[in-house]
Amino acid sequence: MSDQTYEAGLELRRKMFGIDGADKRIEAASDFIRPLEDFVTKECFGDTWNRGVLDHKTRSMLTIAMLTALGGQGGQIRNHVKGAIQNGVSKEEIREILRHAAIYAGVPRSVEGFLNASAALQELGLE
Amino acid sequence: MSDQTYEAGLELRRKMFGIDGADKRIEAASDFIRPLEDFVTKECFGDTWNRGVLDHKTRSMLTIAMLTALGGQGGQIRNHVKGAIQNGVSKEEIREILRHAAIYAGVPRSVEGFLNASAALQELGLE
Amino acid sequence: MSDQTYEAGLELRRKMFGIDGADKRIEAASDFIRPLEDFVTKECFGDTWNRGVLDHKTRSMLTIAMLTALGGQGGQIRNHVKGAIQNGVSKEEIREILRHAAIYAGVPRSVEGFLNASAALQELGLE
Amino acid sequence: MSDQTYEAGLELRRKMFGIDGADKRIEAASDFIRPLEDFVTKECFGDTWNRGVLDHKTRSMLTIAMLTALGGQGGQIRNHVKGAIQNGVSKEEIREILRHAAIYAGVPRSVEGFLNASAALQELGLE
Amino acid sequence: MSDQTYEAGLELRRKMFGIDGADKRIEAASDFIRPLEDFVTKECFGDTWNRGVLDHKTRSMLTIAMLTALGGQGGQIRNHVKGAIQNGVSKEEIREILRHAAIYAGVPRSVEGFLNASAALQELGLE
Amino acid sequence: MSDQTYEAGLELRRKMFGIDGADKRIEAASDFIRPLEDFVTKECFGDTWNRGVLDHKTRSMLTIAMLTALGGQGGQIRNHVKGAIQNGVSKEEIREILRHAAIYAGVPRSVEGFLNASAALQELGLE
Repeated sequence: MSDQTYEAGLELRRKMFGIDGADKRIEAASDFIRPLEDFVTKECFGDTWNRGVLDHKTRSMLTIAMLTALGGQGGQIRNHVKGAIQNGVSKEEIREILRHAAIYAGVPRSVEGFLNASAALQELGLE
Repeated sequence: MSDQTYEAGLELRRKMFGIDGADKRIEAASDFIRPLEDFVTKECFGDTWNRGVLDHKTRSMLTIAMLTALGGQGGQIRNHVKGAIQNGVSKEEIREILRHAAIYAGVPRSVEGFLNASAALQELGLE
Repeated sequence: MSDQTYEAGLELRRKMFGIDGADKRIEAASDFIRPLEDFVTKECFGDTWNRGVLDHKTRSMLTIAMLTALGGQGGQIRNHVKGAIQNGVSKEEIREILRHAAIYAGVPRSVEGFLNASAALQELGLE
Repeated sequence: MSDQTYEAGLELRRKMFGIDGADKRIEAASDFIRPLEDFVTKECFGDTWNRGVLDHKTRSMLTIAMLTALGGQGGQIRNHVKGAIQNGVSKEEIREILRHAAIYAGVPRSVEGFLNASAALQELGLE
Repeated sequence: MSDQTYEAGLELRRKMFGIDGADKRIEAASDFIRPLEDFVTKECFGDTWNRGVLDHKTRSMLTIAMLTALGGQGGQIRNHVKGAIQNGVSKEEIREILRHAAIYAGVPRSVEGFLNASAALQELGLE
Repeated sequence: MSDQTYEAGLELRRKMFGIDGADKRIEAASDFIRPLEDFVTKECFGDTWNRGVLDHKTRSMLTIAMLTALGGQGGQIRNHVKGAIQNGVSKEEIREILRHAAIYAGVPRSVEGFLNASAALQELGLE
């Protein structure tokens, strides 16, 4: 995979998660975690998120939907809710994704999503 | 819940799944399955899908994402891929939802999604 | 959905989770979380839990079984263990539900269930 | 584990699944599958199901709830619906377990449960 | 990602799944499914499987373990059991992976694993 | 099940988790949790882990793989990473199991695995 793809992924991570969730997190990565960080930067954000057809806003909404359906991923829901706001997803759209999940993933997964999304929005001063 | 909500749900089921997936399926429902059909028509399609903020096309994309992340629901992926086409989701957008799922739900769930979506698209003469 | 159903759901939430888990939680709900609280009060506790055939004690046992099988929902297991006690489920019956889950949901889910149920029972002074 | 526990498990398998789902299935088991059959007969049906506190009818209801929440286990839902009938669970109680699952495990899992339960009940001439 | 990685992935797919599961499947892929096939050949088999530290036999055992724990992926369990045999995993080792899963993923997932593995081994004339 | 099996399980728990994770945890177990501890000691560690064909090191790797695929089990991943080190699994092998999981269980589950494994390794002074 070209460095160009890596750079594009790093740029998107910066946009969605800030310097702390991008450069600083990568710099702080131990040899143990580095292979995950490399995969996430290149394959996930550099390649997959930039395949087009679906814009970053739509991919943020789909990611929140998948994380909520998977369950047990509260920390990543919080991160991706913050990233979704950066990608132009509104608070009301996030609410409806999680309310939609009450039907398709069940109330427990929806509750987990709402509690973590609310915490993330509060950190952003939006809730 | 008002009959108006039920009628709105029935109308959306007709639009997404046709008469066979709406009226005929409901008429054929036994007393055993009827409570599920009522819940799906009223709460799911009548209420949740019509809450606004997210349009039907977006809710179809989110539903495919959640079904793929849940796993083991091939038949419902096939139905919702057909419904998604009716709601204006393009074949390329469905492809990207499932390709995005390879990262967030894992390759096995993505494979399940692609195989069932391809089968549904073939039934529609689109694949 | 009639106000009667909402009131029945609120009453059951009070019985199972107390004023703090019902009225106060609903009053504290932001506009963001309110759609979830409304769905939970009306559709979940007001409608589904009051459909009959299965009494509230049995539905509490089934809810703990489903939450344990889903996994990743420790907080909701703690809440529903407290609600189950209010619905007449004994500590020994909760123990057997979670022990049964060791076979059908696997030891990790069962461990998660036991640790969270034990914490909830301790808060109730029952463990 | 004593032979007495194995015999108790075999007896319960016969009661719930008949000779075909017990003796004949065990006799037909290859060396590859035998360790599973032994575990299921002894630990599952011989030990766990006979621990008391919860009777067999209640354990059948909990098992259907867990299988539905796990998802992707249609064949085992069909088998356990048949076994549940033998343990005294009524068709209406099975319906309510699966309708309850629409809230706690989500509509897709509930649909999977209803379709497989209906197929099993039809084989029993009850649907 | 270099063509070298793609070629390494194609070679491994041939070794594990034969020409039918590699070249012919890739040639038969529609434009809809091609992005999945490319990801699987390059990122999955070309890159991840060839990272070293764990040999192909060990990665086959881990893959069967993960597919069994995920649930609902019978078809992919059958494919990977065949691939595992090609990577030097013995029938007895596959049996023990699935028996181990009875404890950690629960009996239903283990049953799904055993039934699909047995079917795959029969196709190979090994069961 | 013979006391010999229980003793073998207790011995393995001591080897993997130390006196605190074995004897002391069992002694501290309330009547509520004891049935779980007994099942884990006898059926899990005494019987299943000692079935042979796969050594303890391999079973530790498979257990980490299954826990990561299940999701939502961070605490048990931390415990089993420590146990895996005692069973001879290297830090690099654990890294590769979790990196492999990024493909088969998805990035979110892999992230959960890496974060918990890193925390466990730090407690051991290995990270």
